[in-house]
Amino acid sequence: MRNFNENTITDAVLERIAGATDPRIKQVSEALVRHLHAFVREVRPTQKEWEYGIDFLTRTGHMCDDKRQEFILLSDTLGVSMLVDAINHPVPEGATETTVLGPFFVQAAPEEDSGADISGPMEGDPMLVTGSVSTADGKPLAGAVVDVWHSDDDGYYDVQQLDKIGDLAMRARFHTDANGRFHFWSIKPAAYPIPHDGPVGEMLEVQGRHPWRPAHVHFMISAPGFEQLVTHVFVAGDQYLDSDVVFGVKDSLIREFVRHPAGRAPDGRMVDTEYFHLNYDFGLKQVASNARAA
Amino acid sequence: MRNFNENTITDAVLERIAGATDPRIKQVSEALVRHLHAFVREVRPTQKEWEYGIDFLTRTGHMCDDKRQEFILLSDTLGVSMLVDAINHPVPEGATETTVLGPFFVQAAPEEDSGADISGPMEGDPMLVTGSVSTADGKPLAGAVVDVWHSDDDGYYDVQQLDKIGDLAMRARFHTDANGRFHFWSIKPAAYPIPHDGPVGEMLEVQGRHPWRPAHVHFMISAPGFEQLVTHVFVAGDQYLDSDVVFGVKDSLIREFVRHPAGRAPDGRMVDTEYFHLNYDFGLKQVASNARAA
Repeated sequence: MRNFNENTITDAVLERIAGATDPRIKQVSEALVRHLHAFVREVRPTQKEWEYGIDFLTRTGHMCDDKRQEFILLSDTLGVSMLVDAINHPVPEGATETTVLGPFFVQAAPEEDSGADISGPMEGDPMLVTGSVSTADGKPLAGAVVDVWHSDDDGYYDVQQLDKIGDLAMRARFHTDANGRFHFWSIKPAAYPIPHDGPVGEMLEVQGRHPWRPAHVHFMISAPGFEQLVTHVFVAGDQYLDSDVVFGVKDSLIREFVRHPAGRAPDGRMVDTEYFHLNYDFGLKQVASNARAA
Repeated sequence: MRNFNENTITDAVLERIAGATDPRIKQVSEALVRHLHAFVREVRPTQKEWEYGIDFLTRTGHMCDDKRQEFILLSDTLGVSMLVDAINHPVPEGATETTVLGPFFVQAAPEEDSGADISGPMEGDPMLVTGSVSTADGKPLAGAVVDVWHSDDDGYYDVQQLDKIGDLAMRARFHTDANGRFHFWSIKPAAYPIPHDGPVGEMLEVQGRHPWRPAHVHFMISAPGFEQLVTHVFVAGDQYLDSDVVFGVKDSLIREFVRHPAGRAPDGRMVDTEYFHLNYDFGLKQVASNARAA
């Protein structure tokens, strides 16, 4: 195998990986080589453009640390994350639609009792979130684990400002009660630009795109026997609902965050300023009995 | 633009980048999105596989520093580097064929006079390299810049063992004389595995591939008015000529490294052990008058 030209090298590489013993690795490797080579043959990069590509990927890797995941941002902004999501999460009637995980989930979020105020030291418009978790056909799920996280009213997450605020905030893990319900207080999140001081921001700029996401609250909900639900609820009326930089918006995930005057809130708490109330009822999808290990 | 499914999201992303003002950026971005999405739709990654992909790219980036370029290794081992090379370097009759740059070129190589021994502190079989640089139709090129670099007889480059050897070795920059000729002494290089203790090595292993390259000497040759030539000369008879892990071998780049007994070498030097002699006559390709800026 020598003397490859731009047409024969693809077969040479495919021949070389034909000995992969794991059929899935072989399948993915072969598809990667075919599609990657087809891309290169179509755009015919100059040597300098190839060097730019290597440098772009290297800088993207160097930007990644325990607080920043630039490759997830790249996947998100190229629509790959939502494509993978769509492939993996066809949603039956009654189950909540899914959307991107995003880079700000933290595994070690604090456990809180229902009703807690999770805003920590953050200031903003008070927000009451009430919700329920049930099966797709409406049976309440007690003891479901509900992870929530969201930005502050400047659009920053706790992990982006730990130096300033000292500890996690605007995130927690709840468990649903016997009726499948949970609720908590926090502050209303704002629309925000994804971190755009790195290679992904550079890409968005030359592609003529803004880096904004419409305001939303993240939810990750788990219960035994059901597929883990990763989704957001978006604030109705946000100016970026039609141009989310990561393509995450679905109509069924938009809700009015209803403005209320000061007074007694639905959970009995007295609030001395106006506040917002979001309610969302989540439906989980049962794990298929013949599910491929995810 | 909302509620994308696995088929409509590609058009949504293409629509979003339609506003890119630079036509080349628009073209490359659109092709990237189409091919990347086609790859994802074909292999239908699970969420866990997507996470593995993100982690693989992140680790590849973290492996890159001033001495190691894991993304170039990835490009090389997937055949992308040689594909880009083939696209950019069609070679006319009389001009030397090109191959990959590889990750071990150093811009700040020491300038040496023709005849120098560049082996530094390295031990091995002495090797005399003689060569010439001319136009594709055989006119000698005086003052051409000839960068050379190669591995030691264990297969390691200087930059992989600077801690041990203290300075660059087995690399230098020469200039051709009035007859377009140059020569130097060093030690004969050995076949070697590319660095395979990182993500690329992990990929090769699961693809059932060895990480070896046949023994070779790198050359990068420049002269005003000619395309820079990036190539190697391979040692005839090497066991990896037919399975170079980076697909870089071309028949025209293989030469006998001729074994000679101790005695007076062609450059007049007395050698008290047996030595090897490589001669290669390089032909440069003129820059096309309508060349696109590389």
